[in-house]
Amino acid sequence: MIESETKPANYRLRGRIWIEGPDGTFLGYGRVVLLERIRDYGSISAAARSMEMSYRHAWKLVDSMNRQGRAPVVEKTTGGRGGGGAVLTEAGERAVASFWSVYADFKEFLGQRSRTLGL
Amino acid sequence: MIESETKPANYRLRGRIWIEGPDGTFLGYGRVVLLERIRDYGSISAAARSMEMSYRHAWKLVDSMNRQGRAPVVEKTTGGRGGGGAVLTEAGERAVASFWSVYADFKEFLGQRSRTLGL
Repeated sequence: MIESETKPANYRLRGRIWIEGPDGTFLGYGRVVLLERIRDYGSISAAARSMEMSYRHAWKLVDSMNRQGRAPVVEKTTGGRGGGGAVLTEAGERAVASFWSVYADFKEFLGQRSRTLGL
Repeated sequence: MIESETKPANYRLRGRIWIEGPDGTFLGYGRVVLLERIRDYGSISAAARSMEMSYRHAWKLVDSMNRQGRAPVVEKTTGGRGGGGAVLTEAGERAVASFWSVYADFKEFLGQRSRTLGL
């Protein structure tokens, strides 16, 4: 059927990835965005609020990442104006960079493989 | 830190893929297993039962695939012993093969990329 061969691609490969650690999910899209927001806002609660996530949930995600990383990804800071802030550690920066790197490769894989599905 | 460099890999990339059609999901792991069972059992209801899936749900998945394929992936057969069977069409065979092919490439991607996460 010539018609179907010249049709634009109707099918697309989609997907989702995450990095598993010793204790289940270590890094995924939402967790990495949370880390970036913590870096930007300097606070877990402000980061959580910006994502419409409860502080409790954000804290649980940070705790899960801190326990599973070779080193903590987020550290609490005390003192200063407002006190009780949080910073992204060097291990946290590495986690963010590692995830986006593999995520970019995955997007590339999905795009390339979408063009050769043979459907 | 030499210790962390010589540690066995603690992190693994995991994921999930599916093929999207004009109307949402077209093929995914469960749908493709269902198609294979229909081929094996010659019946949608027997295939559904073997997966502990309701007939109604199986029928909806088959209907979704039939509507989205360039040609139907499953056809009902009438007559013969028991009647009311179903067969996997040529388009259905192509869908199954296409999915497993891309799935194998994805597994390969996950395995290779797991070894270079840089965490």
